Amino acid sequence: MFEPHPQLAKDTVLIGRFPLCELRLMNDANYPWFMLVPQRENLREIHELNESDLHLLMRESVTISRAIASAFVPDKLNIAALGNVVPQLHIHYIARYTSDPAWPAPVWGKVAGVAYSSEALAKTREKILAALDRTAFLPAGR
Amino acid sequence: MFEPHPQLAKDTVLIGRFPLCELRLMNDANYPWFMLVPQRENLREIHELNESDLHLLMRESVTISRAIASAFVPDKLNIAALGNVVPQLHIHYIARYTSDPAWPAPVWGKVAGVAYSSEALAKTREKILAALDRTAFLPAGR
Repeated sequence: MFEPHPQLAKDTVLIGRFPLCELRLMNDANYPWFMLVPQRENLREIHELNESDLHLLMRESVTISRAIASAFVPDKLNIAALGNVVPQLHIHYIARYTSDPAWPAPVWGKVAGVAYSSEALAKTREKILAALDRTAFLPAGR
Repeated sequence: MFEPHPQLAKDTVLIGRFPLCELRLMNDANYPWFMLVPQRENLREIHELNESDLHLLMRESVTISRAIASAFVPDKLNIAALGNVVPQLHIHYIARYTSDPAWPAPVWGKVAGVAYSSEALAKTREKILAALDRTAFLPAGR
C-alpha cells in the first residue's frame, strides 16, 4: 500500500490525485511550490518506473506544469527530482519569479519557509484546481 | 538553427547526441554531472515541447539516467530543469554520493567547481559511452 513519506506528509498539503501521482502543495508561501508523488511503493528514481507509469508521469508532469504556468504565470518553472534527504520519489514544481526571495538561486536551503495563512492556502488551492479543471485529476476532500 | 547557449558551451563538454538532445558533461570533477539539451530553438520549458519531442525527451531522459546509474552507481540521482540563469532549456543529471562535497544539499552554489584533468575527463567519457552502447546515441568527435 502506497503511503507518502511522513516528512512529505508533514511539509505539504494534499491537493488531489492524478491517475499515477498525488499532487501536493508545499506549505511555503514564498513560492507556489507543488509536488508530484507517484503512488507506488519503494520507488526512489524516475527510471525505476515501468513503461506505462513513465508515460503517466510524463503526461501528469506536463499537465501540472501547464496548469502552474497558466494559474501563476511564473517567470520560470523549476522542476527537480532530488531526494537526497527524503528518499521516496517526489518531483518538485516551483513557480519562480525574478522578485522571489531566493531568485535566481534554487529554492532549497536559501530562505526559511513561511507557512500559508488559511486564506492564502485556500486561494492557491482554488487557483490550481481551476487550472486543472477538465484534466484527469481528482481533488482531495478539504 | 539550434546552437547551445554560450554559457552552456563554456561550462560543459559535448559528449554526443541523442535524436532530440545533446548530451553534455559539466566540467566539474566533484560529481559525474551530465546535461541534456534539446536541439530546438527558443525553448525554455519542458512543457513547450510538442508531443513527439516530449516522448523523445522521456526516452532519452530514462536512457541517460540508467546509463549514469550503471556507469557510476550513485547513491542518488539528482535531475533538475531550473534555467533561472541560463534560459535555454537544459536538464541536469547528477550522480550524487553521500561522500560528495555538497551532500545532502543540491549542488548549485554549494562548493566551487573543479575542472577535470584530461585523463579524468577521458575516463568519465569512456564510462558513459560504454553504458550508452547499443542506444540511439551518436558520440561526438574528440
